[in-house]
Amino acid sequence: MNPLFFPSVEQLADSRLTFRLCAPDAQAPRVVSSDIEQIPSGYDGKPAGLEMTRDAKGYWVATTPAPVLAGTYAYGFRIGQSSVLDPQATQFSVNYRGANAVFEVKGPAGAFQSFDPAIRHGAVAVIDYPSTTLGEVRRAHVYTPPGYEAGGNQRYPVLYLVHGAGDSDDSWTSRGHAQYILDNLIAAGKAVPMIVVMPAGHTVFKPGSDLFMNRAFGDDLVKDLVPLIDRSYRTVATPGSRAMAGLSMGGAHTLAWGLPNPETFGPIGVFSMGFYLPGQEEKYVAANDAALRRRGQAHWPVLFAMGKTDFLHSAVAPTRGLMDRYGIAYRYLETEGGHTWTNWRDYLREYAQVIFK
Amino acid sequence: MNPLFFPSVEQLADSRLTFRLCAPDAQAPRVVSSDIEQIPSGYDGKPAGLEMTRDAKGYWVATTPAPVLAGTYAYGFRIGQSSVLDPQATQFSVNYRGANAVFEVKGPAGAFQSFDPAIRHGAVAVIDYPSTTLGEVRRAHVYTPPGYEAGGNQRYPVLYLVHGAGDSDDSWTSRGHAQYILDNLIAAGKAVPMIVVMPAGHTVFKPGSDLFMNRAFGDDLVKDLVPLIDRSYRTVATPGSRAMAGLSMGGAHTLAWGLPNPETFGPIGVFSMGFYLPGQEEKYVAANDAALRRRGQAHWPVLFAMGKTDFLHSAVAPTRGLMDRYGIAYRYLETEGGHTWTNWRDYLREYAQVIFK
Repeated sequence: MNPLFFPSVEQLADSRLTFRLCAPDAQAPRVVSSDIEQIPSGYDGKPAGLEMTRDAKGYWVATTPAPVLAGTYAYGFRIGQSSVLDPQATQFSVNYRGANAVFEVKGPAGAFQSFDPAIRHGAVAVIDYPSTTLGEVRRAHVYTPPGYEAGGNQRYPVLYLVHGAGDSDDSWTSRGHAQYILDNLIAAGKAVPMIVVMPAGHTVFKPGSDLFMNRAFGDDLVKDLVPLIDRSYRTVATPGSRAMAGLSMGGAHTLAWGLPNPETFGPIGVFSMGFYLPGQEEKYVAANDAALRRRGQAHWPVLFAMGKTDFLHSAVAPTRGLMDRYGIAYRYLETEGGHTWTNWRDYLREYAQVIFK
Repeated sequence: MNPLFFPSVEQLADSRLTFRLCAPDAQAPRVVSSDIEQIPSGYDGKPAGLEMTRDAKGYWVATTPAPVLAGTYAYGFRIGQSSVLDPQATQFSVNYRGANAVFEVKGPAGAFQSFDPAIRHGAVAVIDYPSTTLGEVRRAHVYTPPGYEAGGNQRYPVLYLVHGAGDSDDSWTSRGHAQYILDNLIAAGKAVPMIVVMPAGHTVFKPGSDLFMNRAFGDDLVKDLVPLIDRSYRTVATPGSRAMAGLSMGGAHTLAWGLPNPETFGPIGVFSMGFYLPGQEEKYVAANDAALRRRGQAHWPVLFAMGKTDFLHSAVAPTRGLMDRYGIAYRYLETEGGHTWTNWRDYLREYAQVIFK
């Protein structure tokens, strides 16, 4: 560490986190985070963030009142009305709009999503592609497993893994550490080597757009991105070797364009999403009845996962009911916690172990 | 565009740029940029940035006084003492510390560095690797050319391309658009398909570290990164097919570890850097005399490029003198302008066309 720099985030021996900010003229800055449980999110109407106090050296400092679970977290600072990126940050996560600094809290519980220098690693590429369907340039992240870049003729199954409404195609790697989760599972022989394609889940807003049954997303995915990937990468281009999963909005995309499309996507994963709005399920069934019957005849793994305190937990009963009615075999995984990256990393870990086997 | 969002940066018909910020409580915000010539940099001691004024809707607005040359630029906002990332940004460039939003000004002069939907594209991967030399995890960006990911047995030459002191391994793609420059040149048949490895140019600061003759960087490059790339990618692992180039600090790295190492790196590119500090050249010659004699016997392309108004222009004469004395054949390219990404993109365009042929 350059002595000019102090640690912006420091993990204390008991895993509480201390945040520091050098901003001598700031008035009452706060450290904010939407996913560190020990930092008030503000969602309950109380002030967001932790108040910082000036230490003897003049830094603004705040320490979480309790230890933070090992994992990867986004944070920022609030000075007056301004959201300020950690001026010293070197790790970032790109959101739907804007970006946050990212920090990893180390610990045994987080080892599964941490870079392990002792094993082989894949690569995460950014690709831009012209979407003929949407008439615009789109972006995706693509994980290729260890050894892929050396070439040869081996072909791999592909998981299409979609982010949530607050995220971008960067999020599954920058906050979700999907690449390290896969590296670790593959090294341990618990997952088969696979390509993971992380599409951009948002499309340009148009009047009538529906965030949760977003046809523009589905058309681009099936007509542009999947063919591009099958053309450009060494894939096994069969439904049994092409999975789709997503978190939150990405789970809605998976319900909309993956579950009713067993001819394209075999294994399915829906994380922290389901039918929770009035009329949503009826509309879905009306549009997909025949396709859901076909899904009921398919036998690829389907994982439906939800946290007990997720604000979308009310979606569990209708969503399970629908899958039951169509005879879709699925595993329901209910965990502690809510709508969090801690859960989504866990769900990916579970899911990656059951697909393509 | 979601109607909830207004354009943070708008390219007017005459290529002036209008910046907008929604920050109702801000006092006298400014738009700042270190590389848009029409926005005061502050390097001359005058206030940095353009003052923004409130428009009828309540947005803060500023327009550059003159058109901005087509190209790719980083910008941010200053509110009070705080540097604020554009809250709406979706394109970013990661600096040595912190990050900026990025915006591309479209125009014919910038077409060579712009994504062209009509051609095939490569992919830009991020790889993490354990550096045995440095005992830490390091990161690099790797461009693979169009068609690479489809596999097979074709092998490719590799350009190692290093960023400057203010940058990170992300910068050559996020601000330099190296991937689009290569895509365009390859599609036009002007450059051979190549892999471009963009290492992290900074190392952890240690007492005695020398930013410009940074042995930690050189050791990691030659002992860890090059072998890793030759192991993991389909490379032609010979000096004639392994080039090194860099801008500013990356040019210093290239002078330090590329030019005197013709057994590893054949073609060499030094952009906007040279010997400009007292004693620098003598120290360099003392350390590298025998190696420079060997370089004088080599005949791979060497490009030395500098802008006429670069603050390092005084380095030109001593650096050329040194290469002349050792009989190193090189092309000296002097351009308009200074120490800018506009020049570095141009230099890469020139350089990529002469190597590996």
